[in-house]
Amino acid sequence: MFVLGIDPGLTRCGYGAVEGSGGKVRAVAAGVLSTPKAAPLAHRLAELQAGVRGLIEELAPDSVAVERIFFQVNARTAMSVGQASGVALAEAAAAGCEVVQYTPNEVKQAVAGFGAAPKEQVARMVQALLALAERPCPADAADALALALCHHARAPLRATIAAAER
Amino acid sequence: MFVLGIDPGLTRCGYGAVEGSGGKVRAVAAGVLSTPKAAPLAHRLAELQAGVRGLIEELAPDSVAVERIFFQVNARTAMSVGQASGVALAEAAAAGCEVVQYTPNEVKQAVAGFGAAPKEQVARMVQALLALAERPCPADAADALALALCHHARAPLRATIAAAER
Repeated sequence: MFVLGIDPGLTRCGYGAVEGSGGKVRAVAAGVLSTPKAAPLAHRLAELQAGVRGLIEELAPDSVAVERIFFQVNARTAMSVGQASGVALAEAAAAGCEVVQYTPNEVKQAVAGFGAAPKEQVARMVQALLALAERPCPADAADALALALCHHARAPLRATIAAAER
Repeated sequence: MFVLGIDPGLTRCGYGAVEGSGGKVRAVAAGVLSTPKAAPLAHRLAELQAGVRGLIEELAPDSVAVERIFFQVNARTAMSVGQASGVALAEAAAAGCEVVQYTPNEVKQAVAGFGAAPKEQVARMVQALLALAERPCPADAADALALALCHHARAPLRATIAAAER
């Protein structure tokens, strides 16, 4: 299974791709898509859209795991993150990928064992699980790898439930 | 000038295109893009994306006016509206259109003369300004036509300000 994790954002959108099965997984790509803060909103969203499309074309993942967005304290930030997530979700579905969403708590639970794990610990667990020589950096790329790892951990159970529901 | 107004939404996304200059304007198209409530979010966003892209290709507007989204009482609705607006803004910018956003108050002010005008009055003013035989329906299509009319009314001032800032 090949999963692309996306941590949506307009200024920094993290991505991380994880390939493998069972306990044997490896990181294929990780990084950040950025758009210039000074550019108009619509242009930034179009740039992000092109970036996400390019990544999916290049990597051809089976599944795309996108962080589920909630309202935050800063209403203006939350809206641009919501708009960025809308663009990412639409691109992933249009490309024919399976699209899944996980909350930050589900991701932390899956990679660090508890839902309130600090960012630092998530990054350390991502490094350990993927046997990376260095801590993944920046935090957005580490979060995106964690999303992909979360789907790797959850997918077998999801498939079993889906089969039982048929 | 040819303006496409978009009132973003996932269940119903209103659109309305208005062509003309000065006081002489006419409606070219108006309607609603819908996506099935039962479908997964990412598929609905991809369907909306394809719909908006198709409209822009078919109509080839100079400008696209999208309603500026604010947080609403129902947090879940507001997020899906934000995601839909992100998709619409990205498509419009990617197509090379001028993209503008107006708040509901700015739109009501422009077409009905005051920012707290009820929906009914907005629809009646849209009908009068565009000399339509019937009241535009549904409300989402009327709101989208009002967005396009708002940009027709505001564009000359915007252009003057932009020129002065150069």
